[in-house]
Amino acid sequence: MNVAGVPQRTVAWEDGAVVVVDQAKLPFAFEKRRLRGHEEVAEAIRSMVVRGAPAIGAAGAFGMALAFREKADPAAARSRLVGARPTGRNLAGAVDRVAAAGAGRALEEAQRIADEDVAACLAIGRAGRPLIREGMRILTHCNAGWLATVDWGTQTAPLYLAWREGVRFEVLVDRTGPRDQGARLTAWELAQEGIPHRIIEDGASGHFMRRGEVDLAIVGADRIAANGDVANKIGTYLVALAARDNGVPFHVAAPRDTFDRGCPDGASIPIEERDPDEVLYRSGPDEAGVLRRVRVANPGSGARNPAFDVTPARLVTSYLTPAGVRTSP
Amino acid sequence: MNVAGVPQRTVAWEDGAVVVVDQAKLPFAFEKRRLRGHEEVAEAIRSMVVRGAPAIGAAGAFGMALAFREKADPAAARSRLVGARPTGRNLAGAVDRVAAAGAGRALEEAQRIADEDVAACLAIGRAGRPLIREGMRILTHCNAGWLATVDWGTQTAPLYLAWREGVRFEVLVDRTGPRDQGARLTAWELAQEGIPHRIIEDGASGHFMRRGEVDLAIVGADRIAANGDVANKIGTYLVALAARDNGVPFHVAAPRDTFDRGCPDGASIPIEERDPDEVLYRSGPDEAGVLRRVRVANPGSGARNPAFDVTPARLVTSYLTPAGVRTSP
Repeated sequence: MNVAGVPQRTVAWEDGAVVVVDQAKLPFAFEKRRLRGHEEVAEAIRSMVVRGAPAIGAAGAFGMALAFREKADPAAARSRLVGARPTGRNLAGAVDRVAAAGAGRALEEAQRIADEDVAACLAIGRAGRPLIREGMRILTHCNAGWLATVDWGTQTAPLYLAWREGVRFEVLVDRTGPRDQGARLTAWELAQEGIPHRIIEDGASGHFMRRGEVDLAIVGADRIAANGDVANKIGTYLVALAARDNGVPFHVAAPRDTFDRGCPDGASIPIEERDPDEVLYRSGPDEAGVLRRVRVANPGSGARNPAFDVTPARLVTSYLTPAGVRTSP
Repeated sequence: MNVAGVPQRTVAWEDGAVVVVDQAKLPFAFEKRRLRGHEEVAEAIRSMVVRGAPAIGAAGAFGMALAFREKADPAAARSRLVGARPTGRNLAGAVDRVAAAGAGRALEEAQRIADEDVAACLAIGRAGRPLIREGMRILTHCNAGWLATVDWGTQTAPLYLAWREGVRFEVLVDRTGPRDQGARLTAWELAQEGIPHRIIEDGASGHFMRRGEVDLAIVGADRIAANGDVANKIGTYLVALAARDNGVPFHVAAPRDTFDRGCPDGASIPIEERDPDEVLYRSGPDEAGVLRRVRVANPGSGARNPAFDVTPARLVTSYLTPAGVRTSP
């Protein structure tokens, strides 16, 4: 993807350092950070400077390559990197691949992991590309975009490929509370690419579907169970229900690692509950451009904050995978 | 309802002025505003200092009485008041009743409208009260509570009556973006009454229903068509879909005026689209208690902001009305 005309990857190796887009600063500032040691990489993962399972995996892989260059103890470095986001599946797998490659081939292996992610996203994009047709109104939820991967995204790859081939469409972007990754990250990505889009509240997707103003919904996934149930950002299930009620196709884009054959169904997927403060506060720049955190709920009231929900397989029209479009996982 | 032990009405006539609870300041400050002319009343309705169809109706009624006192042109005053919010049905009906009463009986008629609203809400509460049982987990969307009416609320009246009789339950409060009336107003009301509650994002209702953590959903309505379709705050339709998918009863509480026999179905109800900035910004106090407005979306991106959606009658379990619980309108 191009940012202000310059081709970018979310995570890349440059001149002996891991260079990442600082997602904690987006969309209000576009900055890159040079991470010069594996401990810095671990900290960037922990603090969500890098987010999105595939991007985290690539960052961890390069971090392990850095650890070899630093002549750090490999086992300690591995623990430090994998422990930065203990639930991430891609992270442990990527770090272990680089560790197993050994000092001599670590960087080459990390680069291969990053390139494989780009290739997988492109393959998802090519698989999903025919679904995107001229004049469509497309609904997205959360951000499984460029920023969540090394490049292209999963959810967004079909859109970017179609757009670059000249297909014109519009996107309705679910805010995706509480962290607002739709309003902040997906909207920012679409703006970089010049794709017309408008942000809507999470309650509004059903309204636009009922009015016939959505032709297709596309989301990413955090984990897909063997029976096809999809764990994804909270709110995905409601989008899927509204799509089904209105005959709107509901597509789930995901790389191979997301399909978990060892997990029988959605009920077996543990759902993380995060800090209630994410619901009770919002952050952003005020009129003067100063970042502020404000209370957006009754003082004294508490909140519940499940990070994901489960969409049952019966509501999924198709899975967009690197191996093609599938109607079952 | 009592605020800090003092009985309150949301809208009341006091000493030649319309006194309203300033809902734009809640929940961070409890203040009342004296509106001394009908144009001030119209502005308070337009800017949502007063909100909620019945409260707006009562305010409009008192506003029309003020117009007579001001010796304003009745037709122009009527247009100004009714035009302040296009979707609500109570407003036009209430203003027209006071206009028809004429200068001599305008205030009396407005007071009657306010008292009728209190009585109607109490009747809804008594009708719905048996639905609220010990230990229930109840989901609300938006605020058709005390603050949306003159007193008691529609959606909330069964809850307050049950609570005061000693029935103990918990409430999950949908945030209800973009104006967050759930997180700000319903949560504030429940806190005043001491009812345990937690705020959730608008995307989360389906998750809790799927997990069996919601026993009943209850919402208000802005307009109910002859076929039973319900126009209510954006996001209501998604709650209703999730309730149906999980066998959770979905109740719609509304006074008589909300039922519009002249409107055949939901497709005939005009849906107001409000300022996109409501989606793109949020306001609240910062750590120092200073009210700030912050950008919560990508700079440069736009938004769509429908205020209401339509829930088809097939998803409604029952209508809680002053005349009792009905399965059809």
